[in-house]
Amino acid sequence: MHQTLAILTFDTEGAGFYEITEDITRWLRETQVQVGILTLFCQHTSAGLMITENASPAVPRDLVRWLSAAAPDGDGYEHSAEGPDDMPAHIKTMVTGNSLTVPVADGRIMLGTWQGVFLVEHRARAHKRTIVAHVCGD
Amino acid sequence: MHQTLAILTFDTEGAGFYEITEDITRWLRETQVQVGILTLFCQHTSAGLMITENASPAVPRDLVRWLSAAAPDGDGYEHSAEGPDDMPAHIKTMVTGNSLTVPVADGRIMLGTWQGVFLVEHRARAHKRTIVAHVCGD
Amino acid sequence: MHQTLAILTFDTEGAGFYEITEDITRWLRETQVQVGILTLFCQHTSAGLMITENASPAVPRDLVRWLSAAAPDGDGYEHSAEGPDDMPAHIKTMVTGNSLTVPVADGRIMLGTWQGVFLVEHRARAHKRTIVAHVCGD
Repeated sequence: MHQTLAILTFDTEGAGFYEITEDITRWLRETQVQVGILTLFCQHTSAGLMITENASPAVPRDLVRWLSAAAPDGDGYEHSAEGPDDMPAHIKTMVTGNSLTVPVADGRIMLGTWQGVFLVEHRARAHKRTIVAHVCGD
Repeated sequence: MHQTLAILTFDTEGAGFYEITEDITRWLRETQVQVGILTLFCQHTSAGLMITENASPAVPRDLVRWLSAAAPDGDGYEHSAEGPDDMPAHIKTMVTGNSLTVPVADGRIMLGTWQGVFLVEHRARAHKRTIVAHVCGD
Repeated sequence: MHQTLAILTFDTEGAGFYEITEDITRWLRETQVQVGILTLFCQHTSAGLMITENASPAVPRDLVRWLSAAAPDGDGYEHSAEGPDDMPAHIKTMVTGNSLTVPVADGRIMLGTWQGVFLVEHRARAHKRTIVAHVCGD
């Protein structure tokens, strides 16, 4: 068994789901690992990583709406240094999580038919986001 | 260190928590790994995996009620192709997550006294669900 | 590649976020793993593990408030054997999760600038909590 680690960066254009399945698939192919475990880790406290349906763009839109209703922007938070979308972004990151662990077989991420990998931007404005990708296997 | 990967399938009978601790324990024993890391990955966007208390059946029932109140069935979603429980199931999967990573020692999953591993069905109707099990260790 | 596993215990003083970044960093240094994957697993159903901002103590306080509003203490639960904060603690553990997987490089956890590792106590009273730490790498 051997391992490979890389730092990948992505530009977001504000709150929403950004599918990165193809970026990860391409990186994984370069590592030449056929069977193993892929870990993705987002180095931020206001952006997350998630696997959800990638067939209908209405699914991520409904998820964004639900998250915004669950943790609305506003001045009702003690922590508000960076504006009304600051603390809600930390809450939403708690809900979505900031890492993913997925088995690999035949050199590919073992996603189900309807699954895609998404970087989830929880801040209102555009950001550059860093994801650590690690694979361990044969 | 070596690794083993398998695809396990489970039948659900509609929304609820289905304990799979014994199925996973049995599979793990067959791999003969004594110390390592177990990963379970659910290949669906409307069912999840969770570790919670398995002593009192009231705990999963309360969790189901809480999830249903947090993301109620209905027509208030943009994505409603498969009915009123479709989008809520995606939201609930976001909350419960769809993978688990647990250390292994003495050939057993290192669960705490009160912990059990559950497949969580978020759709109203019965489904066949696929879980990828992977263990890496010695 | 090789692996090391340890059981770490922490005392909490009731509901809140307890930063354990330095404890984990110290343990990781002793393992002498330079590059790999760190897994932390909390063996409880009423306490979790999370990565969030550690610069402003107001962030964890706001997270505790949000969790308490989302799953309020009370008698509205079927499972209430251990008191009004029992079932809410299980719900909050579902939201925060109970494991973390983080890449390691240069012998250090690859946390982002603002990230810290927290043990999250969801019960009102003080508890002793057990976390399994596992690292696999070179």
